Amino acid sequence: MRDIHGGTERKLTHTSEVGLSRFNHVRYVSELLCQPLMVEDYCLQAMADTSPIKWHLAHTSWFFETFILKVFVKQYQSFHPQFEVLFNSYYNAVGQQFNREKRHILSRPSVDQVYEYRAYVNDHIQQLASVIANAHYSDAQQLEFSQLLALGCHHEQQHQELMLTDLKYCWFQNPLYPAYQDNLSPLSSAPAAHVLPKKITFKSIDAGLYSIGHSSHESFCFDNETPQHQVYIEGVNIAERLITNEEYLAFIDDGGYENPLLWLSQGWSHLQQVGAVKHPLYWVQQDEQWFEYHLYGLKPLDLSQPVIHVNAYEADAFSRWLGCRLPTEFEWEIHQTKINAQIPEHNFLNTQYLQPTNTQLVGNAWQWTRSAYSAYPKYKAAEGAIGEYNGKFMVDQLVLRGGSCATAASHYRHSYRNFFYAKDKWQFSGISLAQDIN
Amino acid sequence: MRDIHGGTERKLTHTSEVGLSRFNHVRYVSELLCQPLMVEDYCLQAMADTSPIKWHLAHTSWFFETFILKVFVKQYQSFHPQFEVLFNSYYNAVGQQFNREKRHILSRPSVDQVYEYRAYVNDHIQQLASVIANAHYSDAQQLEFSQLLALGCHHEQQHQELMLTDLKYCWFQNPLYPAYQDNLSPLSSAPAAHVLPKKITFKSIDAGLYSIGHSSHESFCFDNETPQHQVYIEGVNIAERLITNEEYLAFIDDGGYENPLLWLSQGWSHLQQVGAVKHPLYWVQQDEQWFEYHLYGLKPLDLSQPVIHVNAYEADAFSRWLGCRLPTEFEWEIHQTKINAQIPEHNFLNTQYLQPTNTQLVGNAWQWTRSAYSAYPKYKAAEGAIGEYNGKFMVDQLVLRGGSCATAASHYRHSYRNFFYAKDKWQFSGISLAQDIN
Amino acid sequence: MRDIHGGTERKLTHTSEVGLSRFNHVRYVSELLCQPLMVEDYCLQAMADTSPIKWHLAHTSWFFETFILKVFVKQYQSFHPQFEVLFNSYYNAVGQQFNREKRHILSRPSVDQVYEYRAYVNDHIQQLASVIANAHYSDAQQLEFSQLLALGCHHEQQHQELMLTDLKYCWFQNPLYPAYQDNLSPLSSAPAAHVLPKKITFKSIDAGLYSIGHSSHESFCFDNETPQHQVYIEGVNIAERLITNEEYLAFIDDGGYENPLLWLSQGWSHLQQVGAVKHPLYWVQQDEQWFEYHLYGLKPLDLSQPVIHVNAYEADAFSRWLGCRLPTEFEWEIHQTKINAQIPEHNFLNTQYLQPTNTQLVGNAWQWTRSAYSAYPKYKAAEGAIGEYNGKFMVDQLVLRGGSCATAASHYRHSYRNFFYAKDKWQFSGISLAQDIN
Amino acid sequence: MRDIHGGTERKLTHTSEVGLSRFNHVRYVSELLCQPLMVEDYCLQAMADTSPIKWHLAHTSWFFETFILKVFVKQYQSFHPQFEVLFNSYYNAVGQQFNREKRHILSRPSVDQVYEYRAYVNDHIQQLASVIANAHYSDAQQLEFSQLLALGCHHEQQHQELMLTDLKYCWFQNPLYPAYQDNLSPLSSAPAAHVLPKKITFKSIDAGLYSIGHSSHESFCFDNETPQHQVYIEGVNIAERLITNEEYLAFIDDGGYENPLLWLSQGWSHLQQVGAVKHPLYWVQQDEQWFEYHLYGLKPLDLSQPVIHVNAYEADAFSRWLGCRLPTEFEWEIHQTKINAQIPEHNFLNTQYLQPTNTQLVGNAWQWTRSAYSAYPKYKAAEGAIGEYNGKFMVDQLVLRGGSCATAASHYRHSYRNFFYAKDKWQFSGISLAQDIN
Repeated sequence: MRDIHGGTERKLTHTSEVGLSRFNHVRYVSELLCQPLMVEDYCLQAMADTSPIKWHLAHTSWFFETFILKVFVKQYQSFHPQFEVLFNSYYNAVGQQFNREKRHILSRPSVDQVYEYRAYVNDHIQQLASVIANAHYSDAQQLEFSQLLALGCHHEQQHQELMLTDLKYCWFQNPLYPAYQDNLSPLSSAPAAHVLPKKITFKSIDAGLYSIGHSSHESFCFDNETPQHQVYIEGVNIAERLITNEEYLAFIDDGGYENPLLWLSQGWSHLQQVGAVKHPLYWVQQDEQWFEYHLYGLKPLDLSQPVIHVNAYEADAFSRWLGCRLPTEFEWEIHQTKINAQIPEHNFLNTQYLQPTNTQLVGNAWQWTRSAYSAYPKYKAAEGAIGEYNGKFMVDQLVLRGGSCATAASHYRHSYRNFFYAKDKWQFSGISLAQDIN
Repeated sequence: MRDIHGGTERKLTHTSEVGLSRFNHVRYVSELLCQPLMVEDYCLQAMADTSPIKWHLAHTSWFFETFILKVFVKQYQSFHPQFEVLFNSYYNAVGQQFNREKRHILSRPSVDQVYEYRAYVNDHIQQLASVIANAHYSDAQQLEFSQLLALGCHHEQQHQELMLTDLKYCWFQNPLYPAYQDNLSPLSSAPAAHVLPKKITFKSIDAGLYSIGHSSHESFCFDNETPQHQVYIEGVNIAERLITNEEYLAFIDDGGYENPLLWLSQGWSHLQQVGAVKHPLYWVQQDEQWFEYHLYGLKPLDLSQPVIHVNAYEADAFSRWLGCRLPTEFEWEIHQTKINAQIPEHNFLNTQYLQPTNTQLVGNAWQWTRSAYSAYPKYKAAEGAIGEYNGKFMVDQLVLRGGSCATAASHYRHSYRNFFYAKDKWQFSGISLAQDIN
Repeated sequence: MRDIHGGTERKLTHTSEVGLSRFNHVRYVSELLCQPLMVEDYCLQAMADTSPIKWHLAHTSWFFETFILKVFVKQYQSFHPQFEVLFNSYYNAVGQQFNREKRHILSRPSVDQVYEYRAYVNDHIQQLASVIANAHYSDAQQLEFSQLLALGCHHEQQHQELMLTDLKYCWFQNPLYPAYQDNLSPLSSAPAAHVLPKKITFKSIDAGLYSIGHSSHESFCFDNETPQHQVYIEGVNIAERLITNEEYLAFIDDGGYENPLLWLSQGWSHLQQVGAVKHPLYWVQQDEQWFEYHLYGLKPLDLSQPVIHVNAYEADAFSRWLGCRLPTEFEWEIHQTKINAQIPEHNFLNTQYLQPTNTQLVGNAWQWTRSAYSAYPKYKAAEGAIGEYNGKFMVDQLVLRGGSCATAASHYRHSYRNFFYAKDKWQFSGISLAQDIN
Repeated sequence: MRDIHGGTERKLTHTSEVGLSRFNHVRYVSELLCQPLMVEDYCLQAMADTSPIKWHLAHTSWFFETFILKVFVKQYQSFHPQFEVLFNSYYNAVGQQFNREKRHILSRPSVDQVYEYRAYVNDHIQQLASVIANAHYSDAQQLEFSQLLALGCHHEQQHQELMLTDLKYCWFQNPLYPAYQDNLSPLSSAPAAHVLPKKITFKSIDAGLYSIGHSSHESFCFDNETPQHQVYIEGVNIAERLITNEEYLAFIDDGGYENPLLWLSQGWSHLQQVGAVKHPLYWVQQDEQWFEYHLYGLKPLDLSQPVIHVNAYEADAFSRWLGCRLPTEFEWEIHQTKINAQIPEHNFLNTQYLQPTNTQLVGNAWQWTRSAYSAYPKYKAAEGAIGEYNGKFMVDQLVLRGGSCATAASHYRHSYRNFFYAKDKWQFSGISLAQDIN
């Protein structure tokens, strides 16, 4: 295991200091998450949608290098000339990208070299922040720098969640079921007592016009949360908590996977494919008992906790089985804005537990909505490569809302729009419900 | 070639007469469309999305048999016991379905037997209508019968368009480029003079709340057009005509297919695949000249006509290239409701020409919208098998609007929602544009 | 159904008459085989290895046109310019070929046009034979003509067997189980009484040097049967009859398909694939009873008849289960040369029954040998396109020997080498055995 | 990098000492080959045919554990209970096997754990040898032990070559072109001067009966080299050296890859596939110059050295282009037995260079023969799991002869039969020629 590279201590002006402090923290957390790993664990890619941990660590550094250092630092000397291609994810405006499905085949650069790359980028960002703070740059440039720094930090926080979901997926393929070590107490603090939650209750929203999207000009958001705009919705009831493993098990036991009338056509076709998994992704049945693979190993299924690792087809079928439906992303956001639930202030440094711990709608499991991921009215992507961050994915995917147990609290907002394909199961994705008011 | 089976002439009460007259007409048109075909042409299936003509003719009969005759006629003797499986498309509540991709492998029933099946179903529907008209059935039953008869007719009209698009796709694979014969004058009347349309002009819609969906309780619509509901939209400009082949060619010549920044990520990936076609589906380049395959053979590309057979990725990239975007389905419907364009009263009996003939937004080419196909608020699918008609497809597809040259006028409404996957190119799908008002 | 095109009656010299009479007969038989078919049946291609009947009828004509008419007839006017590509199977020296897997997509030329093509080629061959017989050509040219005519006839006889195996495969996919009509008495004469054959007996061959390959310079053979050469073999016992359905069923019932130790590694992998068929291809189990699909429909499995439609992996596993092995092609040929079994003089005109009727090693089922298909020592392929007939397939396939119920008697010789991939099951392929003498 | 685990020094009787000394040496060499690797390099699997280095190291230990320790040691405590499945390659008689294509997904056991596993097995073999030497076992058991020990050593030597070919394949996918480090002098000693070899000369073999297969009862061979038996061959000329890169380049430049008439049908189909590589596997063209990827990095192509990394289709096409053919495995063995060339006494400890260094037919590149891999007359596989070693692969593959630069001298015999699929290119496979004598 690896020592964490501590943050540097330099004097900076106040504004930069805040951004830089956040930068140092985020960069530190990514490495903290890797503390329990062996070198071999950094290299896994069990399916094309996942990336090796090593790649995530390098790509997030590449992001700062490409969009900040190469832009702001005159005659910036990149760490390695070929990293521009190797660690470019999907930015066509930057240039070629190494074949996504083959990332696991890159034994070099080694894990050590990737950590050197991270340190190199960290150092140069520190130096640059110092230079910018000392007024060599215009106000506009300072602002752009601090905005890009914030974007890079949120980008890395997104990848922190992906690191955990990708690792979980890859480890699960190994019959030895590797796990984060138990003595890492902050990351594995036990969940609350296993008391089954009460009956699902609903809270109503009246028909009317509502504001949707990120409002403040002060705080950070991704461009896909803007512009704020009006949406008319009909009256609707929203369930006040997530669906549990117990409830999902009842759906299975009731033959939910065998009844085509509960399913979207695509979902049913998907189920008929060879090797289709007819339960949440990490559920394992042994001797008629259900287990669930966690990042802490294979454990008996906790019926009281939220069901996770279902795809949108499963979420939709479950909701239909209960006579409900999935909420739209607008209904979801209106509901949350109204009740203003807080994501727990856990974070990866002290209180984070990498499974949901209760059924609250925020901070435990992303929830599939029935809303296709699409641009808000008058949405404009940024100019240049950075404009490829979100906009070009606005087709064929669905929006998920709510944040998960692997989402940093400082990364979350109620207007946050996550998006995946309806078939995807490897994220911390669960189920919340809506009901039309007639 | 084949004689058309004439409609029967029987005395019926007024209401039934209208429905039955429509039934006779629709059934007749399906066979009329096949007049120019040889037996061999009925059996083609060049890709899984298409079905053999023979299958369409049988399946549309199966629809009447399954949802009307088997329900209303006591001790109904079905034409053939195995047809229930062979010609079931996707109705799980009815039962098993023959493998969709393998429909081309059914040499039996023969084309003649399928025509016998059609005649058998036609006769029984006539008899049933007569019985129902003579008051052996309650009002509710009479209403249900006439609604199902209308649904079956609209269903068959949908398949008429599919028959043409499927045949076009299959014939195009043959280097002999088979074609509808030229002496069939009604079906091949020449289009208007090839005058290039003027510059694109836009018509504005103000921000506000609008009604969307089918309103009348009198006239037919599919369930996916209901219920009528309110939608809030921002101000927007809608182009008053379709994009032409000339304009699309300019996009190609400007390197549109080589610039990733114009494309949605899924679209760009799609283009990078082996054998990706970088032009509308039926365009063929020979000696630096562009030709287009029609149902009348391979012809020089008519620059003045609307571009068709593009997928949503191409439509989206083109719109971005022009600094525009695709309209939402709501914007499109509001615009059409306002100007109330009429689909030409061409039909397959006298004036239909199986290519677009002008750039009007209705009746020439379906237009991709940016709207994912989803349920309207409070939408409820019907009970039973018939409920599988539309609702279960409400994920992963996009809405198209406007009707095409292959859409019967009597089948069209401004609230009509067609839907296909973003990658699909074999429908008569073209491009219309929208522009945000800032 | 279709009238058979009768042969023409012209006066020719003796030599030509023999060849021409054979030509007329062979051409007639191909069409006779199609008598029971409907137009729809001519167009089927249920997998890439099979071809539509229509294609076989055209391709065999193409062969005469390409290798005889275009060579011998000055200013020969081909029937259709694009047929050169459409009906070229695999002759690269001739030119491009239409995509093999897509032959089913060619609705045109129609079946009628293909019959016209056949008649056109027949007429021109007749005329050419007449011209050649009347001494306008040198002896060498006459010889070449008569050799190519014989090759074309044997080529067409090969395709006659393929027409039957391909049709059987395609019809089998149809749950209606289409069949040759029963009133076609010559083609469906009933087999002998169903008496189970006695225990398997073996006949020994001594170790020593033996001649292998076609010897006579008089009679026809394919180039792959030459040159005759010496082979040294060890002493071996050869089973005197084919394995029966009863014996193969015992293998199944003994768990043969579940015991990896009986199988070649490739065969076992093949079995583990999704949808692998763990019995002969056309066996169907209904209510615990076994049926077999014939060209005469689905019939109860006849235990006394030879097992057919097994692949080489199954044949090999079965032989191992019995403590035997498959013979080499040399052992097989030496055995047959010694006992000189005769293929029954059935033919498609009067006595042919399209299933095996007894367990004799010739004329019932092709038998898998353990010999890879390879060139005999000093083998030379012919110059030019005709050289592509056999030689280029001499890798990755296995030799089968013996002729089947679908092999014309006039087409068979003991030196005949058939060849298919080890995995192939759709030919009339069965099992014979060998045993080492220790 | 890693310290080599030194062999233990214990007193044993003479016979065991020889076997054990060989065991220690072979086990040592496997680890020596890994000295230049980083942990990340042990985990690569770029295609299903290759295995991670880590897996090779474990599997070869599994072989000794499974076939010796578990058999001879009472109450043997296996190193880890799940390794029986994880590191079983293909022995069905032993039990289940972890999915071959997914070996790269096993980050655990770690590299360190695999080395512990090796040491554990080494220690137990040492102890067992000591026990056996001290006469607790019968003569038959002692013989069986020493035979299995020899088999295990030869098995591991086979995997040593695979480790190198697999690593080469995987590293080649990385645009950084990783390489064995240059300062490892024994492994990277430079080849001889680059003098182009002279014209190809041939040596004749007379027609006649020859002995084929391993003769001695003293020395080790695999079962597939037995029994020795008689083969009759025709007179033939065998080329006295391998084909060079220069000669193969001439074939390319002459359009060899564009002329279908040079190719076996399977080979030509293979070439028409998307992404087919039309040159030896590791050739790279940059700025019109050819380079070749070695285990020492990307180097200019050495025209004087043997061409390697061609598949059988390429070898066959090349031979046809020169008016020759590939030898049969019998011709090859007769030729070598006659001239009795010696494989150089290089080995991995001092003189091995991991590229061919001259054109001698042994010890530089395996040579494709036209012989399908098949059983010798009266071949019998061993009883039990060990019988799965060779026999079950005797279909669909071709024999290669001659040993390569990566074959240990102590592992090679002229009767050695290597086998791969005709399409395979990642082995050190080159070309030798034969010519019929007419």
